[in-house]
Amino acid sequence: MKVYAVSEIEQVVSAGDFQSDLIRALADGFEAFERGEFAAAPVQTLGAPPLAPFGGAGCYVDEGGGTEEYAAQTCVKSGYFRDSPYYVIKVASGGYPWKDNSGCMQVYLQKTGKLEAMLLDDGLLTEIRTAAVGALACQLLAPKRVTCVGVVGVGVQARYQVRMLRRTVLAGDDGDGACRKLLVYGRNGDRVRTYADEMREDGWDVSVADRPDLLLERCQLVVTTTPAREPVLGTSTGGAAVKPKNLLITCVGSDAPGKVELATRLVQQADLCVADWPEQSRVRGEFQNERYDAAASGGGGVVSLGRVVRDAELRRRNDSGGDDDDRFVIFDSSGVALQDCVIAEMVYEALKKKEGG
Amino acid sequence: MKVYAVSEIEQVVSAGDFQSDLIRALADGFEAFERGEFAAAPVQTLGAPPLAPFGGAGCYVDEGGGTEEYAAQTCVKSGYFRDSPYYVIKVASGGYPWKDNSGCMQVYLQKTGKLEAMLLDDGLLTEIRTAAVGALACQLLAPKRVTCVGVVGVGVQARYQVRMLRRTVLAGDDGDGACRKLLVYGRNGDRVRTYADEMREDGWDVSVADRPDLLLERCQLVVTTTPAREPVLGTSTGGAAVKPKNLLITCVGSDAPGKVELATRLVQQADLCVADWPEQSRVRGEFQNERYDAAASGGGGVVSLGRVVRDAELRRRNDSGGDDDDRFVIFDSSGVALQDCVIAEMVYEALKKKEGG
Repeated sequence: MKVYAVSEIEQVVSAGDFQSDLIRALADGFEAFERGEFAAAPVQTLGAPPLAPFGGAGCYVDEGGGTEEYAAQTCVKSGYFRDSPYYVIKVASGGYPWKDNSGCMQVYLQKTGKLEAMLLDDGLLTEIRTAAVGALACQLLAPKRVTCVGVVGVGVQARYQVRMLRRTVLAGDDGDGACRKLLVYGRNGDRVRTYADEMREDGWDVSVADRPDLLLERCQLVVTTTPAREPVLGTSTGGAAVKPKNLLITCVGSDAPGKVELATRLVQQADLCVADWPEQSRVRGEFQNERYDAAASGGGGVVSLGRVVRDAELRRRNDSGGDDDDRFVIFDSSGVALQDCVIAEMVYEALKKKEGG
Repeated sequence: MKVYAVSEIEQVVSAGDFQSDLIRALADGFEAFERGEFAAAPVQTLGAPPLAPFGGAGCYVDEGGGTEEYAAQTCVKSGYFRDSPYYVIKVASGGYPWKDNSGCMQVYLQKTGKLEAMLLDDGLLTEIRTAAVGALACQLLAPKRVTCVGVVGVGVQARYQVRMLRRTVLAGDDGDGACRKLLVYGRNGDRVRTYADEMREDGWDVSVADRPDLLLERCQLVVTTTPAREPVLGTSTGGAAVKPKNLLITCVGSDAPGKVELATRLVQQADLCVADWPEQSRVRGEFQNERYDAAASGGGGVVSLGRVVRDAELRRRNDSGGDDDDRFVIFDSSGVALQDCVIAEMVYEALKKKEGG
């Protein structure tokens, strides 16, 4: 078994065309998933309902006399492509009050069951593969001309999403400066300011919204990245009840039963609802339970990302003009093991190549 | 992260009282499970239905012109005790036609999510914790006087079960030589002979049965260890339709949907049916589907092992004489993550202690 440290992994994922290659590989992966060539095991979520919270000895924090319980959880996702020599088990942990995320990706051989490589990524690869699916959705489903990106939430994934967009699918807009506008909404003023400062350093022209639904009015792409259990977006009365147009909302926050970011009304108003894995979105994504059946006003239901990759009719950005270009599309990413397989295999192959060279 | 090789792990598990300590720790663990203090995630089974078989590049064997597909599968079991600092993810693979089992046990901190120790056990700890539960069942549920042990199947687990019994709960019978009789049934004559020779070297007085139901007539403890998908035991007509008495059957083979070793009739005849995890046994154990409701003639249903640990009335061996001593009991082990937690934590603590000393 080879063990790779996060520093080695960081070098690989920040090098050259890795991120663009990843987006392409994910598109291929989701198409294979659509063809039934990827097997995903049921997700294990530890530390969250219906299992007990993590509460082991020493797991409570006493700060200033109070006792705080963790919101920590760990997600185990496993799967394999039929035509790959590998299967991958991914462990990602987060939600600890004073610690960073952690985790690892484990590459096993289908041929022998042996653990071949251990990528001690501390959750980095999960952040990147999630951001890469956001970028892929933007490429396939965002309006042709994005002049303002909105982001809800100011945590780690809000950083990865925006940086990945800038570096890949929105990079081409650099010339006219059109897509340097970023409109941010977050609940904690201090954290919003820190986030805005960081994004300004990255070259964004950042504004802060005082209410989330302002993003629906001003942006052509909105990415939601919160762990909310009550809708954040589409909750204002009056004007915001008007159906948005010329908009893609990408939801990456909802990844467990009970977590939702959009008002049901918004889900109903969409012209097209897409999910990385519709079946999973029904249980632990943005289209949970009765929202699944209510998705998309046209009665189109929830379409898989793999089908969008395969079917040019469903895509938008750069592919079609005309009538459908003002559509309101929602994409939900609840996270699929295939993303872990794709990135783990790419990183492992790159690491092997470096060692060989 | 500390990585431990199988050779280091072997030293720990074969030392001194480790196996007896393990059986006691498992009894405590199952009692805690019964009290709701253990959280077990849904099992991930890769390479087996409903997921695709492993079929990656290079995963087919060509021997003498034929092409053979694997029966290989990988099981991922995860869980944690509420009062432990750890959670454990266990990966165990088997069924490869020309390779040994493989796997690892991963010890993480609930406090930070960090991977603290990687036990590269190649499946060894899964074999041992499974054998230890068989020994615990024998201790709690076998007739007081066992003069002949039966074993169905002659694979790896058939070895571990019998060796663990000899070393622990049946060790006390050494004086009068009463429990040195082993009656074996297997389908493959060559493999049966090899197995019988090995067990003779271990000091057993081994006989080979020409039909499986002979074990029901001659033994007080029968352990079934096959991957059968059709009943092996209790299928003969005529005399064997008589309800067995003074018998414990421990079933360790059935661990996935569709795998069963006992005829439904036997399950119906039992005075008491016990499972390591009744809920799981209903889906992937010996008491699958309609067999669950048919279990135990007295209408007692399927009782958890934890309840048997807690309730002296349900136990038998060494604890009670009199009327219930000729009961026919079936115990099903489909394997619970708590066994992995117990053994992984014990081994890790022992390894740390060795390093410190």
